[in-house]
Amino acid sequence: MEVKIGIAKTNKYAVSECGDSVEIAERPRGGISVILADGQGSGRAAKNTSSLVVNKAASLIAEGARDGAVARAVHDYLYAMKDGKVSSTLTILSSDLDTQTILFSRNSNCPVLVKSLYGIEVFDQEVSPIGVHKRMKPLMHEMPLEVGMILISYSDGIQAAGRKRGRVFDFNFLLRLLEKNEPRDAVFIAESILEYALELDDNRAGDDMTVIVMGICEAENHHKIRRISVSFPC
Amino acid sequence: MEVKIGIAKTNKYAVSECGDSVEIAERPRGGISVILADGQGSGRAAKNTSSLVVNKAASLIAEGARDGAVARAVHDYLYAMKDGKVSSTLTILSSDLDTQTILFSRNSNCPVLVKSLYGIEVFDQEVSPIGVHKRMKPLMHEMPLEVGMILISYSDGIQAAGRKRGRVFDFNFLLRLLEKNEPRDAVFIAESILEYALELDDNRAGDDMTVIVMGICEAENHHKIRRISVSFPC
Repeated sequence: MEVKIGIAKTNKYAVSECGDSVEIAERPRGGISVILADGQGSGRAAKNTSSLVVNKAASLIAEGARDGAVARAVHDYLYAMKDGKVSSTLTILSSDLDTQTILFSRNSNCPVLVKSLYGIEVFDQEVSPIGVHKRMKPLMHEMPLEVGMILISYSDGIQAAGRKRGRVFDFNFLLRLLEKNEPRDAVFIAESILEYALELDDNRAGDDMTVIVMGICEAENHHKIRRISVSFPC
Repeated sequence: MEVKIGIAKTNKYAVSECGDSVEIAERPRGGISVILADGQGSGRAAKNTSSLVVNKAASLIAEGARDGAVARAVHDYLYAMKDGKVSSTLTILSSDLDTQTILFSRNSNCPVLVKSLYGIEVFDQEVSPIGVHKRMKPLMHEMPLEVGMILISYSDGIQAAGRKRGRVFDFNFLLRLLEKNEPRDAVFIAESILEYALELDDNRAGDDMTVIVMGICEAENHHKIRRISVSFPC
């Protein structure tokens, strides 16, 4: 089995700091997690908030904390540090090899889409962001880990793409993309969604945009070689 | 400008846990760092050690600590936690946009190779690993950040590849690879080195193997899209 992760990310047009942050963390008992946070506002303050959130989450996951506890602890941390005045979204997608499940945790106004052998499900129940309410619960979902699955999530800037120009992000575009593609196309899927959103914004992103995709496929090579590739424009 | 990072990693043959750990951390004042640790021994204990080391380093870097302080603090942490009984290597390669420099920190028996406009330099001065001596200093190097640079480092398993089979890792292979390739080939360079080492070990890695490569090139796209791709066999 092989987990493929694709991430594509861009800043709000003409703003040098990106308020979205993403981290990847290896799970000590096997597996990997992708963490996405969108900090309140934009620019440096938002970047600092979301960076705080994903770093805290990544280090807790790497220490072996379970995802539900991670989301709660990171909320409490942000609430304590910022006195309940700064919010952030938090989405965690995990492939847990120990329990052989896919796990995801949402505190975001953006959905998680899951393609499995039984079709495509959209998880978009309303839930609060972290950091601002005294009591907060993440929306957690767990399902058996199976080859063929694809999970997608993204930040606000994707969902709202085109809105200021009177255009609407066509959700069917996402569904068609999921239907047509395989788990090993995780990178292609992430880039296609970002490109589509940028087009809607005439290539001048109205907000920070991030797409995260996780695909579960058969192992490509028998040497178990792990590969990471990063392009970091600056 | 664009920073390209390529990482390729495999486990010791027939061992399920990898004692090497790698993390990528974004620098809050701009730039990106790659952190490589090789924990003492192999299997789960080594994995836990190196994971502790890279996670601590990544979270300190993300909080804005300077690299020299990070290496020292991570040493002190490991020394305190494991009572000075467990060692780990630690290598940090950083592109620091704030100071416009390339920075790297070595506590490893493996070298850092740097290709710049002035040729190829090999940094392989002897230095202790972290975790076991009361006082420890990282070997730090800093140089101007310039398009065209490539940095390479790797773990012990690469350096020692083939040794048990009476073969020697040909250092000239690395030099030729560096000469022939461009910064944007970071992923290709990392995979080529890992493949070469695996060949020397008859495709049964005698130790955990990790290669990290950082290349500085002209920006490929003007939309400033950040891309991350991960293949995680399990």
